[in-house]
Amino acid sequence: MTYRQLIARFGTPAAALAAVPDLARRGGGKAPALRTTSDAEKEIARVEKLGAKWLMLGQGLYPRLLAELEDAPPLVTAKGDLGLLDRQAVAIVGARNASAAACRFARGLAHDLGQQDLVIVSGLARGIDSAAHDGALATGTIAVIAGGIDVFYPPENEGRQRALFERGLVLAEMPAGTEPRARHFPYRNRIIAGMTSGTVIVEAAPRSGSLITARLAAESGREVMAVPGSPLDPRAQGCNQLIRDGATLIQNAADVVEAIRPFASQVRSPASPFEPSVEQLNGDDALGEVERLLGPSPVPVDEIIRLSGAPSGAVQLALLELDLAGRLERHAGGKVSLVSQ
Amino acid sequence: MTYRQLIARFGTPAAALAAVPDLARRGGGKAPALRTTSDAEKEIARVEKLGAKWLMLGQGLYPRLLAELEDAPPLVTAKGDLGLLDRQAVAIVGARNASAAACRFARGLAHDLGQQDLVIVSGLARGIDSAAHDGALATGTIAVIAGGIDVFYPPENEGRQRALFERGLVLAEMPAGTEPRARHFPYRNRIIAGMTSGTVIVEAAPRSGSLITARLAAESGREVMAVPGSPLDPRAQGCNQLIRDGATLIQNAADVVEAIRPFASQVRSPASPFEPSVEQLNGDDALGEVERLLGPSPVPVDEIIRLSGAPSGAVQLALLELDLAGRLERHAGGKVSLVSQ
Repeated sequence: MTYRQLIARFGTPAAALAAVPDLARRGGGKAPALRTTSDAEKEIARVEKLGAKWLMLGQGLYPRLLAELEDAPPLVTAKGDLGLLDRQAVAIVGARNASAAACRFARGLAHDLGQQDLVIVSGLARGIDSAAHDGALATGTIAVIAGGIDVFYPPENEGRQRALFERGLVLAEMPAGTEPRARHFPYRNRIIAGMTSGTVIVEAAPRSGSLITARLAAESGREVMAVPGSPLDPRAQGCNQLIRDGATLIQNAADVVEAIRPFASQVRSPASPFEPSVEQLNGDDALGEVERLLGPSPVPVDEIIRLSGAPSGAVQLALLELDLAGRLERHAGGKVSLVSQ
Repeated sequence: MTYRQLIARFGTPAAALAAVPDLARRGGGKAPALRTTSDAEKEIARVEKLGAKWLMLGQGLYPRLLAELEDAPPLVTAKGDLGLLDRQAVAIVGARNASAAACRFARGLAHDLGQQDLVIVSGLARGIDSAAHDGALATGTIAVIAGGIDVFYPPENEGRQRALFERGLVLAEMPAGTEPRARHFPYRNRIIAGMTSGTVIVEAAPRSGSLITARLAAESGREVMAVPGSPLDPRAQGCNQLIRDGATLIQNAADVVEAIRPFASQVRSPASPFEPSVEQLNGDDALGEVERLLGPSPVPVDEIIRLSGAPSGAVQLALLELDLAGRLERHAGGKVSLVSQ
């Protein structure tokens, strides 16, 4: 989001990079270490040597729906059939320790949706994710992984990932060589939810990662769909709860197709991720006031704007300065808080 | 409904009975055979000899919520603990050939709802119904049966029905001695749906009797609740479809209690089932016009009133006349049609 707001504010990466040290100092921190051109060129070369491509926010190959997220990743590495990005996609995710029946259901659902010309997106995890990729391997499937494009996780899925390099597509936000860590998985999940018209959750326990994907899909305005199960089966509780909370109950591919129909026309709509601000920087007027209004509890940016009485652009600039100074934390739902010192 | 409209029109049973022959003749039929006082006294005595009581629409013991139905039964026979009629009730119904797991779930749900002081109503059929009664036998359960109060169906449930005579309550609309026939079951289901705040459906195949009960509950403005299951299990399809259509997904007793809370205050509200009409009979003006507007396809009474341009009371009278003449058929949702000759 910081990247996006910098570009929106300064128009070009070069202008943004030039402004960062000063903004950070105004926000009360020291200037962040910026990578050199030579670092960047090395990273570009490394990815290209792996046979992968760069997808850049705002450029042609970047997934259109993903570009709509306010926290869309600026850069994604991609290896495989980039043509899959042009088709409408649905995510199928679920428990790693899913029942055999649920895996069979996920594989069948992915297959049937593939027959309807839909691309299946998942996370290449054990269980439901693997079954979903397998079901759609012949028709088109995309894996979004939490680590670098060249890292195989879980290890037993190396063969599956290589098959997707050849016959599908693999996307990674983290730099090549990155081993996935726990905090990377929610970042990965936002890409799965963000690049698809909707997400189907198959067997998920309460408080599982699949439910994070469901929440992210809902926050992005995408369709949340869940496969029900017996209340006697603990693995069905997460999905049943989602349905109680308003997710569409899914019994078969036709139910999915019906649910995501409203999104069909949006896949190829032109994306305009950047709307450069025409407002002038108007000094540091708002910074002190914004800082005073912030605390350790997340509050909506809208509320800060309202309470400060300052123009929206001035508040956004102040938040950007605090952010670059390492003093701002951004939360889901457009909320922000001060980093506790 | 004919009974109710006659009483509403003529104020007392005696006046209604005196008017029936003439009304039927005006409707174009012959006068229906009326039972004699001696017939009625014999039937009353028979039921009392069985140890059962009469519940009469509009009188004290008659279930309050049931009295709200426009097709509430005028008379019901009851054997067992009539005090159960004073407590809030929930129906649990489902497949006769339910899985063992679903029967266990129904029994546990009935038990847990009983602990919340709710009375469990069901139909004493095999499968889910029997499990529901068993789970609530200690706390309070009512069976509504399709045949006469003294008829045991299915035969293997004789012991269960006798236990309900002693420790619960059994209700029957059909006269004592009546063997249940297929057409009696939907009538029975309207009583189950009508006397409860809501109906929980546990495992039901598409197009099953349990779904009729669900529809009747929805038409009576009561809560429709369903227990989900795997899409791979055909016995779960009816319930999953109900949830897709808007039924509340139920995982446990707390979900049921939450769903029916809005009805809690309505149990003891005074019932006033009869609102005698103050309109005068205004000749046979509407009869010809109403007859012309009717055909073999069911149409809403409201539409007949609108199209005829006649006062509502005149149209209702015309319908009553056709009804008593055996020429009118009444359908769900306040629709009527002419009986094909």
